[in-house]
Amino acid sequence: MTNETRVRYYPEEMLKHRVQTLLVETGARASDAAETARALLHASRIGVDSHGVRLAAYYASLLRSGGLNAAPSPLYTRTAFATGRLDADSGLAHPACYRAMSEAMILAREAGIGAVGVHRSTHFGAAGAYAVEAARQGMIGLVVSNSDSAVSLFSGVAPFHGTNPIAAAAPVRDSEPWLLDMATSSIPFNRVKLYEALGIDLPADVALDEHGQPTRNPRHASFLQPLGGETFGFKGAALASLVTILAAVMTGADTDPVMVGTDAAQTAEARQNVGHFVIAIDPERFIGRASYDAAMTRYLNLLRAGPSIDSGHPVLAPGDREWQESRRRQETGIPVDPETRTSLGLP
Amino acid sequence: MTNETRVRYYPEEMLKHRVQTLLVETGARASDAAETARALLHASRIGVDSHGVRLAAYYASLLRSGGLNAAPSPLYTRTAFATGRLDADSGLAHPACYRAMSEAMILAREAGIGAVGVHRSTHFGAAGAYAVEAARQGMIGLVVSNSDSAVSLFSGVAPFHGTNPIAAAAPVRDSEPWLLDMATSSIPFNRVKLYEALGIDLPADVALDEHGQPTRNPRHASFLQPLGGETFGFKGAALASLVTILAAVMTGADTDPVMVGTDAAQTAEARQNVGHFVIAIDPERFIGRASYDAAMTRYLNLLRAGPSIDSGHPVLAPGDREWQESRRRQETGIPVDPETRTSLGLP
Repeated sequence: MTNETRVRYYPEEMLKHRVQTLLVETGARASDAAETARALLHASRIGVDSHGVRLAAYYASLLRSGGLNAAPSPLYTRTAFATGRLDADSGLAHPACYRAMSEAMILAREAGIGAVGVHRSTHFGAAGAYAVEAARQGMIGLVVSNSDSAVSLFSGVAPFHGTNPIAAAAPVRDSEPWLLDMATSSIPFNRVKLYEALGIDLPADVALDEHGQPTRNPRHASFLQPLGGETFGFKGAALASLVTILAAVMTGADTDPVMVGTDAAQTAEARQNVGHFVIAIDPERFIGRASYDAAMTRYLNLLRAGPSIDSGHPVLAPGDREWQESRRRQETGIPVDPETRTSLGLP
Repeated sequence: MTNETRVRYYPEEMLKHRVQTLLVETGARASDAAETARALLHASRIGVDSHGVRLAAYYASLLRSGGLNAAPSPLYTRTAFATGRLDADSGLAHPACYRAMSEAMILAREAGIGAVGVHRSTHFGAAGAYAVEAARQGMIGLVVSNSDSAVSLFSGVAPFHGTNPIAAAAPVRDSEPWLLDMATSSIPFNRVKLYEALGIDLPADVALDEHGQPTRNPRHASFLQPLGGETFGFKGAALASLVTILAAVMTGADTDPVMVGTDAAQTAEARQNVGHFVIAIDPERFIGRASYDAAMTRYLNLLRAGPSIDSGHPVLAPGDREWQESRRRQETGIPVDPETRTSLGLP
């Protein structure tokens, strides 16, 4: 294995600059490029490389093809005391979703809870990037997004829902936030590709072949099963359906089965109309912030003190593994694969 | 097998009357007994017998022991334009959670979204009962509740979270609501008991023995695994954790690991302090009701038209199976097991 096929490590600021440069070179406004880089670095920092800086090349290709509107005019409308809608005008989804969460927090600061639906948006990377923003400002953040068909229904034999992520974050005093960011399938499709590259079998209950039959051979995997697999996949499928209702049916986005495919040739005439739905909740309006902080700390202390199946690896709270990785990468830099190095013009 | 060991079928109104009578005889107010019967009949009607009329005997025993406050003075406080808190004063949880959803809908009617946190509550039966109320009034309803420890953490070897249900319902024009009501474990513990009674193995990935080792022998099952099991249980555990944060940390209820056990001797000195969190969202403030109705119908038509692994059993939307069962039981009556017949004084 030569150096050219291995990952190399880069400081965060350098990657951020390269991502911004690539997006601006392909037509994005500087401010939109900066927000997109910010979201991608969230994922790269915590170890979710599938949704990190490697996506910059995909967004750049959409900016070139017209699949993304390089100069969108997003329109935010407050629709009630605690709700709003954002038409993202087919621009980069990251500034749109940061904006949506920012507006939801303004609503929640006044009303206790706030919700913003986003439509005519596009692929927004890691849902957790936007939920974390709420937690950093003392609020519970919830973020869902629909996406194009990739996952079967329960007892279905064709893809229907997208991987439809659910993210949530909650503030923790003197600590990084509690963080959940999960697809409603067991794994994303790029994990299948990873198993294929490694030449190992898939776990049971994660993928189906082109005939809708379960397969553990990554080369035969054609689409994904919902979380819970063959026996309990009705739960994952129902969660995916809830995401579609909130993010698409409620907002005016395309539902998953009629959305332009991520792998399709996206142009100005064939753009995705993705939907997101974000909620911010202010603990101050429930138990009060001081009591919330104390209760949250007690709860997490109890959780982390639980006996583990492996005494060398303590039980973790949602987000712990990601923040550990973030601290590690502050030391090592962020690993970048050769293909992404090329797209970002990295040495 | 004699008649005495078989289920018998009864009309809904008769069961409702018997449940109310039992609860009033054991000290509940008539109005609280009626709301509790209403929630139990929701579950019995749609086939969720574990959370149906059989629970009346459990609530009656708590009313007798003082584990439930027979004459609570619930206190609702609106805390902001779109939020409120309800102190249920240790009474029957069903009237408290119906009240919470009713208040959340009042908030949502004004503000677009409304959220109410409930604390000092108790076991509320099926979470879907309250979510459905929102859908019947044209809103999206979300309901979560924490509960006493019964489910391991991911890589944990002891129970920590409760089965912490997530329910959601959404209105569908000219139809019963879309309905999701799921535990964040793969199965509830009474399903383990059912497998034991039937003498068959458990599915993989659902239960652990007293040492925290996976088991498929229902007699060795000591507690449950989170949805996703050994490989993907971090997702079920994180969803359970989100439920605990919303329902307990945010509201002032006991978190799952410190809550008085459902099987413990509950008295006036040792009551559960369960928390619920309910959200109502008005589609009128997003895409608008007419557009929502049209989009929801289109989406569900696409979903149900998807190819099924078994051509005799079409793919179902969340809730379809439950409403089918409800129509069947309108014809047959509701099946009641011998023990529950005795407790309700049924012929």
